[in-house]
Amino acid sequence: EAHKLLVLAGDGIGPEVMREVARIVHWLDANRGLKLDITEELVGAASLAVHGVPIRDEVIDLARKSDAVLFGSVGDPAWSHVGFDKRPEVAILKLRKELELFANLRPAQLFDALIDASALKPEVVRGLDIMIVRETVGGIYFGEPRGIETLPDGSRRGINTEVYTTSEIERVARVAFEMARQRGNRVCSVEKCNVMESGLLWKEVVSDLHKCEYQDVELSHMLADNCAMQLVRNPNQFDVIVTGNLFGDILSDLASMLTGSLGMLPSATLGIVREDGKRNALYEPIHGSAPDIAGKGIANPLAQILSFAMLLRYSLNRADDADLIEKAVSNVLASGLRTADIMSPGMARVGTDMMGQAVVREMEKL
Amino acid sequence: EAHKLLVLAGDGIGPEVMREVARIVHWLDANRGLKLDITEELVGAASLAVHGVPIRDEVIDLARKSDAVLFGSVGDPAWSHVGFDKRPEVAILKLRKELELFANLRPAQLFDALIDASALKPEVVRGLDIMIVRETVGGIYFGEPRGIETLPDGSRRGINTEVYTTSEIERVARVAFEMARQRGNRVCSVEKCNVMESGLLWKEVVSDLHKCEYQDVELSHMLADNCAMQLVRNPNQFDVIVTGNLFGDILSDLASMLTGSLGMLPSATLGIVREDGKRNALYEPIHGSAPDIAGKGIANPLAQILSFAMLLRYSLNRADDADLIEKAVSNVLASGLRTADIMSPGMARVGTDMMGQAVVREMEKL
Ligand SMILES: CC(C)[C@H](C(=O)O)[C@@H](O)C(=O)O
Ligand SMILES: CC(C)[C@H](C(=O)O)[C@@H](O)C(=O)O
Repeated sequence: EAHKLLVLAGDGIGPEVMREVARIVHWLDANRGLKLDITEELVGAASLAVHGVPIRDEVIDLARKSDAVLFGSVGDPAWSHVGFDKRPEVAILKLRKELELFANLRPAQLFDALIDASALKPEVVRGLDIMIVRETVGGIYFGEPRGIETLPDGSRRGINTEVYTTSEIERVARVAFEMARQRGNRVCSVEKCNVMESGLLWKEVVSDLHKCEYQDVELSHMLADNCAMQLVRNPNQFDVIVTGNLFGDILSDLASMLTGSLGMLPSATLGIVREDGKRNALYEPIHGSAPDIAGKGIANPLAQILSFAMLLRYSLNRADDADLIEKAVSNVLASGLRTADIMSPGMARVGTDMMGQAVVREMEKL
Repeated sequence: EAHKLLVLAGDGIGPEVMREVARIVHWLDANRGLKLDITEELVGAASLAVHGVPIRDEVIDLARKSDAVLFGSVGDPAWSHVGFDKRPEVAILKLRKELELFANLRPAQLFDALIDASALKPEVVRGLDIMIVRETVGGIYFGEPRGIETLPDGSRRGINTEVYTTSEIERVARVAFEMARQRGNRVCSVEKCNVMESGLLWKEVVSDLHKCEYQDVELSHMLADNCAMQLVRNPNQFDVIVTGNLFGDILSDLASMLTGSLGMLPSATLGIVREDGKRNALYEPIHGSAPDIAGKGIANPLAQILSFAMLLRYSLNRADDADLIEKAVSNVLASGLRTADIMSPGMARVGTDMMGQAVVREMEKL
């Protein structure tokens, strides 16, 4: 029986890089018996333009009934003045919330062949392999009350609320501890408990869970400002970092930029287990819609391709296919092909489609 | 008439590095007629131990009546489990709030002699000179409601509130625009307007102020997650960054770590203008209390010394003395002396007091 896949390419470079995934799907279908039942839908600015909303309820429903969602990216400066409910970004925020996709796994991994692309010294980033586990359905992203109110004197007040409950913290911390057991066995929990009570609760709940169930994992705590510094000073001190929605947004982008290859990094967001026994899950590159280079055919498709590999591994239980893709990507890099974002002297610069084709060619050889 | 100075050394390495400032004060008194009326008080864990509170109301009052406050650092792991009101950090938070010290100026500047101490490649950080203007009396640090509540089922909820009003945003943006006019004439305003209404208001108010009064300054806007990435990728794109309390906390620490010399960087926090025509102001190093190295005599005193130089320049109108100190620090570095935090091969390693003495010796020569 075919796996149900919902593909949401979104805005900017999203559709361009998704096209290269289609190439790979096609090859896996023809050569390795991968049967996918794919539905494509518009999200973000693309959906706003056609349907007037960043994501339709039908699309959310489809996502709920799919085995996995492959997401591109959303965001478009043209829609940035249209009103808070009509932000293209609402598409991803709603998907996370409605499918309860609470744990965003963001690996910040250095591809050895790309060590020169990092702004950091080679000796500081060599071997970098951090996993950031970011909470994605709580915190200040979703807390109420929120909004902008006009005061009697005509001035205005903007309000957002950070809220975390025991159970929200516990379930994401659990993902981090489980993750650590399969990696370096260390978790660093990050908050701002010296200023925020929600951070204090965060720290306590993570500590308690650790004491009760994960004493075999090494746990440390760090303030968010210090974590930002430590990520620059000595990123290799980290194994798994677990943190809230807002800090996770900033720190995971920072961590991936350390590798110098943002265009290479995939992510998975895991949700609750459904009644049919399957776990909601969405896969997306860490990079955004990059409107400045959209339509030019120069975007790096590898993060999107690697996101699809993660999807095969974690949602479709096809680790062999995932391995194959990852190995092919690594060979392509070793062969010297580079898109503009990871270009360095002596390498061969290629566009989006050439890069996708090269990955398929490598898969054929393996 | 003597200038009234309140000195609050605080915890950890605070008292150690402050001792080196005393050395310089002494020299300026003897040689350049600097007359200071200095009061020293305990804050942070040091105050908790003696008075049971992180800062006494009398000390706040003294600060209000002083020409400037020279602050060390607060924070002590021994007090981290004692309760939210008894955090040593309350001392600095209360000072900022009560004196309405709303604009924290944090320069992230590379000392050329220290370029090797950065984790970033020399070509990425060379010439780095960013000024971060961080709002410090609003946002999620102070918003109500806040706290941890226990729900009927025994689980708990942590809550904090981000609030920004038009006038709070405007006054700090004004500082940033004025600052930019004296520097590279560019301001980048940072928020998370794609997720938070308070960020949306921030962006609008900064834009409006720019349109009305600062059209000669170049203004751009950036999301906080992107700013963290851009600071690593290409920090030299920035001149002045203006942002809220929480983002400013993280981004300014990140920016200073880029220089590799956190132990070198001073900061000034400017407040409202008082009835006597003077402006409340507090000066402190960017680094924290560093409990891990406290008491060992190895802390770098230069950030504290340079904070005092800023104080002379901005609050006491003694730019000549400030120049003298800054020049002396620069000569000491050029001569090859290094504390442990900025040590590199071929340099001469010295402790806290040797470094302070060296600065005075250079002042004598100049
Ligand atoms: C697009 C935006 C709403 C989103 C976020 O802030 O979560 C993005 O930055 C991300 O990290 O996935
Ligand atoms: C000590 C702490 C409360 C403080 C803050 O978070 O503002 C510190 O990190 C700073 O940046 O001055």
